[in-house]
Amino acid sequence: MLPFARVTVIGLGLIGSSIARAVRDYMPSVRLTGHDASPAVREAARALRFADDVTDTAGAAVTDADLVILCVPVGAMAAVAAEIADELPADAIVSDVGSCKASVAAALTAHLPPAQVIPAHPVAGTEQSGPDAGFATLFRGRWCIVTPLADSDPTGVERVAEFWRRLGAEVEQMAPDHHDLVLAVTSHLPHLIAYTIVGTADDLEQVTESEVIKFSAGGFRDFTRIAASDPVMWRDVFLSNKDAVLDMLQRFSEDLSQLQRAIRWGDGDALYDRFARTRAIRRSIVDQGQDDAAADFGRKHD
Amino acid sequence: MLPFARVTVIGLGLIGSSIARAVRDYMPSVRLTGHDASPAVREAARALRFADDVTDTAGAAVTDADLVILCVPVGAMAAVAAEIADELPADAIVSDVGSCKASVAAALTAHLPPAQVIPAHPVAGTEQSGPDAGFATLFRGRWCIVTPLADSDPTGVERVAEFWRRLGAEVEQMAPDHHDLVLAVTSHLPHLIAYTIVGTADDLEQVTESEVIKFSAGGFRDFTRIAASDPVMWRDVFLSNKDAVLDMLQRFSEDLSQLQRAIRWGDGDALYDRFARTRAIRRSIVDQGQDDAAADFGRKHD
Repeated sequence: MLPFARVTVIGLGLIGSSIARAVRDYMPSVRLTGHDASPAVREAARALRFADDVTDTAGAAVTDADLVILCVPVGAMAAVAAEIADELPADAIVSDVGSCKASVAAALTAHLPPAQVIPAHPVAGTEQSGPDAGFATLFRGRWCIVTPLADSDPTGVERVAEFWRRLGAEVEQMAPDHHDLVLAVTSHLPHLIAYTIVGTADDLEQVTESEVIKFSAGGFRDFTRIAASDPVMWRDVFLSNKDAVLDMLQRFSEDLSQLQRAIRWGDGDALYDRFARTRAIRRSIVDQGQDDAAADFGRKHD
Repeated sequence: MLPFARVTVIGLGLIGSSIARAVRDYMPSVRLTGHDASPAVREAARALRFADDVTDTAGAAVTDADLVILCVPVGAMAAVAAEIADELPADAIVSDVGSCKASVAAALTAHLPPAQVIPAHPVAGTEQSGPDAGFATLFRGRWCIVTPLADSDPTGVERVAEFWRRLGAEVEQMAPDHHDLVLAVTSHLPHLIAYTIVGTADDLEQVTESEVIKFSAGGFRDFTRIAASDPVMWRDVFLSNKDAVLDMLQRFSEDLSQLQRAIRWGDGDALYDRFARTRAIRRSIVDQGQDDAAADFGRKHD
């Protein structure tokens, strides 16, 4: 018994188009409707045929849905919620994939009945964007965090969880505020730092950009991957999860200052102690299937 | 005509054992001698058979070498140079693979004739360590930076460059000081930041380690790879390239403060402008063959 029969995806970029493809592969009897605000993306989506129907308006996409998933930047959630409110069936569930949950919950419930809103966040992605970049296996073995509201329909929560399990994800429930704190450290801070260091390198006057690129295999290239992520999506994340990000950033800056001082004063023991404790975390991530066991992310060397 | 006929590798970890394996594959007629200060590593190296001979002392390893490559942490270079000085043939070249070049040049020339010293640095590696971790193709398509001294033998410089080309590397020459500035941004700063953020995450009290690991696919896991690198090697790098690292760190911190301020004051345009300029660098790195073109470093999604 499938959790939903008629699924609508609004926003057909990397995540939205991956959901559509995964629904097609793993729940082929589901009717899948898509919409995107961009005419070019709608045209691409029609050509790629990962949806049964692509509508020209958000309202038209939801009229007979039993699940609507908003896959737009978190700053656009409120506007899309307002757009679909009048057309939404009374028994449909509205979920989303945004990287911040407290702000999205507020944005959605401002325009939609709280009982129908069940926010979620699949912790998966790549640095690529757009309807071409999606693929059906993106969520397999990754975690999807469901963050129900006090008013969310409990049966709906279980159906949303089951939907994500069908796409291959493992599901965890969490309060929206706690989600935002966890993701501030596992996702938002890493992106902010990666964007910063790539910008710093780009601004140097003593080292040319050509040198930065040539010798990037020393470690820098790893940071350029997440710094190639979608700028609108990430602008919205930092505006929406301000407090948790600023808290994590403050802790990071203090820790960095401590290492900076150790370097300045030649304190090798302090450096060694810091560097020797971080291998264990890598090992746990690999052991729990959250990264490739192969050296160098399994990059090809040939 | 091979650049060298009898090569000695001192230090048989990831880089040393990769050189040995690559010499065996690409210059099979070369006689390869190895040594490591650790009896356990010597035993492993003998079992792995990537060298014709593994000696118990550094001195015994160099007696008939025409190229000696020191593959030890940069803080150990001076001691190894002192150990081999008396046994080194007068026509042998001594090179190394250290990540800092000015300090290594000083360490080697303190004990060895400057004409025989030709420092180099292959910009390649993985997060793994030890004689088991090496592989012959590690240097293919990567850059090796040769940093000759004023007194280095010019013929020797060309022979060292040719040696690295035979292992599949592209070779660039640079002054040691400039090397140290370039690598401070493309390698040393990224490692310092990765070690820091992994430590910061490990210290949180509101977010559990189990949560950090589960939800690491949001970006954090990328940083754990280089933060799993060898702590002794990296301690020595930061002690040896202090000035350049502190300079880059200062610039990075200023740029991070600017973004922190933009987040605090809700300046979305400033965030967008920063985030929109970093994709081009990623594209250049991929275009120039310094990283995988596939999304997500080519990680498997299945």
